[in-house]
Amino acid sequence: MSLNLDELAPAFIREVIPYKPGKSIDELKREYGLETIIKLASNESPLPPSQKVKVAIEQAAHDVARYPEDAAPVLRERLAKKDGVKPEQIVIGAGSSENLGMLIRCFVSEGDEVVVSEHAFSVYRIFGKMSGASIIQTAAKHYGHDLEAMLAAVTEKTKIVFIANPNNPTGTWLTFNEIQNFLKEVPENVLVVLDEAYYEYVEDENYQSAISLLDQHTNLVITRTFSKAYGLGSLRVGYSISSSDLVNYMMRVRYSFNCNSIAVAAALAALEDKDYLEKNLANNHQGLIYLKSCFDKLGLEYVPSATNFILVKVGERAMDVFNALLKEGVIVRPTVADGLADFLRVSVGLPEENQLFITKFEKVLKEIL
Amino acid sequence: MSLNLDELAPAFIREVIPYKPGKSIDELKREYGLETIIKLASNESPLPPSQKVKVAIEQAAHDVARYPEDAAPVLRERLAKKDGVKPEQIVIGAGSSENLGMLIRCFVSEGDEVVVSEHAFSVYRIFGKMSGASIIQTAAKHYGHDLEAMLAAVTEKTKIVFIANPNNPTGTWLTFNEIQNFLKEVPENVLVVLDEAYYEYVEDENYQSAISLLDQHTNLVITRTFSKAYGLGSLRVGYSISSSDLVNYMMRVRYSFNCNSIAVAAALAALEDKDYLEKNLANNHQGLIYLKSCFDKLGLEYVPSATNFILVKVGERAMDVFNALLKEGVIVRPTVADGLADFLRVSVGLPEENQLFITKFEKVLKEIL
Repeated sequence: MSLNLDELAPAFIREVIPYKPGKSIDELKREYGLETIIKLASNESPLPPSQKVKVAIEQAAHDVARYPEDAAPVLRERLAKKDGVKPEQIVIGAGSSENLGMLIRCFVSEGDEVVVSEHAFSVYRIFGKMSGASIIQTAAKHYGHDLEAMLAAVTEKTKIVFIANPNNPTGTWLTFNEIQNFLKEVPENVLVVLDEAYYEYVEDENYQSAISLLDQHTNLVITRTFSKAYGLGSLRVGYSISSSDLVNYMMRVRYSFNCNSIAVAAALAALEDKDYLEKNLANNHQGLIYLKSCFDKLGLEYVPSATNFILVKVGERAMDVFNALLKEGVIVRPTVADGLADFLRVSVGLPEENQLFITKFEKVLKEIL
Repeated sequence: MSLNLDELAPAFIREVIPYKPGKSIDELKREYGLETIIKLASNESPLPPSQKVKVAIEQAAHDVARYPEDAAPVLRERLAKKDGVKPEQIVIGAGSSENLGMLIRCFVSEGDEVVVSEHAFSVYRIFGKMSGASIIQTAAKHYGHDLEAMLAAVTEKTKIVFIANPNNPTGTWLTFNEIQNFLKEVPENVLVVLDEAYYEYVEDENYQSAISLLDQHTNLVITRTFSKAYGLGSLRVGYSISSSDLVNYMMRVRYSFNCNSIAVAAALAALEDKDYLEKNLANNHQGLIYLKSCFDKLGLEYVPSATNFILVKVGERAMDVFNALLKEGVIVRPTVADGLADFLRVSVGLPEENQLFITKFEKVLKEIL
């Protein structure tokens, strides 16, 4: 009897196709032998890291031999203060995607359903499949979530509805009223996981975080991240906010010390650096205006964005444009796997990066289209 | 219809009792208002961190805004070279416990069985329960694994046999021949996960890593960690070595960027600092001799240890001794949850820490026993 992994693992595990992250700068350097590379592919903060964060990391480096305090109680308290909730409502994750993973691990088993939107963040689908869920995908509306369709897709088998607000990779968003109305309608025994990874960037006054709705809706979970506006992508820190009862469940599937000491120290420091956050948001505001004006001049459609990236319609040769840009040392993100084959997603960079991208983009478009 | 989490989650999730890590120094300082605390509770490296590691962390701090290269290809290559395997055989985890988690997530579903030993590392049981497994626990033999009993416990439902070699919290170990013979007997469609977290510390010449057995046994998985001899407990880096086919399965349940950039950079630096490792092992060697001689003088039994900790028999008032030591500013580890109520586990510290522990231990024993 020899080892047959396909027999050993459940069928649903075999069917998982892992998330494929964007190319890293180091990878591209190795592949193409390029020296100067700009990466506008992963919705990272384009600013150099906060000085306060660097100092906190250097200090934490003196104590790496010791396990951190489990479950990051100091960071939970600090976040609770910031967000007006109790520390017991917060779970720190190694990136908010770990929180998404914990929620699925806790509540979703083989045969259950999770409801997601077309063009939504692909991790919901992938993580759902890891637990053998059926992924019920509703059609997008103006590239964003169609909440009516999502509500109609809820059945007795539905465990979780995932909503990204704003959404990645489309940049679309839902207003507070839309979320509030949806929560009134959705059955209370279905979890609504609201991914607010990009919420800091939104400028529409009709948008706001759903935190104020947590008290009325015990089935609501909000996730947040330090990977975007706070500039800690490499460190993997995120969190979720929910009822403390739900936290007690998540804690049963959380791995001890799941967020490392340096990440926790950096997150605490990032919260104290309001200048960094403000600069980041201001840079993003200007960058979006610039990119949109350039796309307008080029006669290219784009999806209105409330985030730090923008989805631009390039046409059926989008992948050729993507590859040609790579050879020019510019990494953007193809969205073919998100059902958006004609588009490219471009993260907002520093002004000089945005300009260089536009220069290379124009060059490549002329050659290819 | 209101939210009932007990209905929403599978019954086996409700039954998970999370791992309870040892008290941290910060926690104890807050609780008892103590200034000087020595922690011999979590089998950490007692040395100050390697200078090379600190430099690597400071350098990596300049790039925290960017996501790391996913799956840490550079570290996989470096480890493959060190361990004489191919990079495709390695999965980097956020601590080797994440690798254990990935293996269970991949191959263990509700109703499956996993076989563990009494007094073995409790995480195997906890993680198994997260996937709804039945935990089949065989009686210990001389505080260690009884491989004959474990073999006899394998049924058609068994997916994984977990073996800690050396074992935590007992410090016991199995020889290479014992592991080799076990692998010959165990059905090939059962995974054998061999946890070598403490292998660097073992001095018995009859012990060696099972890496050389990977070619003959495709059902073998070895896990390793940087948390102990390499002194990176707070950073969460570990890895597993197995067939590349099995790696392809683990990758389906791995979260992207699961090991953060600072942890990867520190692990690479730690591998280059042979002095640190040697000093750590030498300190441990001397510390074990010292602690054993003190226990001998005190007339206390202990379990022979191949690790950086030692299990000492205190008697039925072990928890009282533990609590009295806490008030003296000394943290050790009770093992009641491991079925060893009469014992305390003491990590080897620096010479002055070991001496201080013994002084306080003698004092407390006189008061209590």
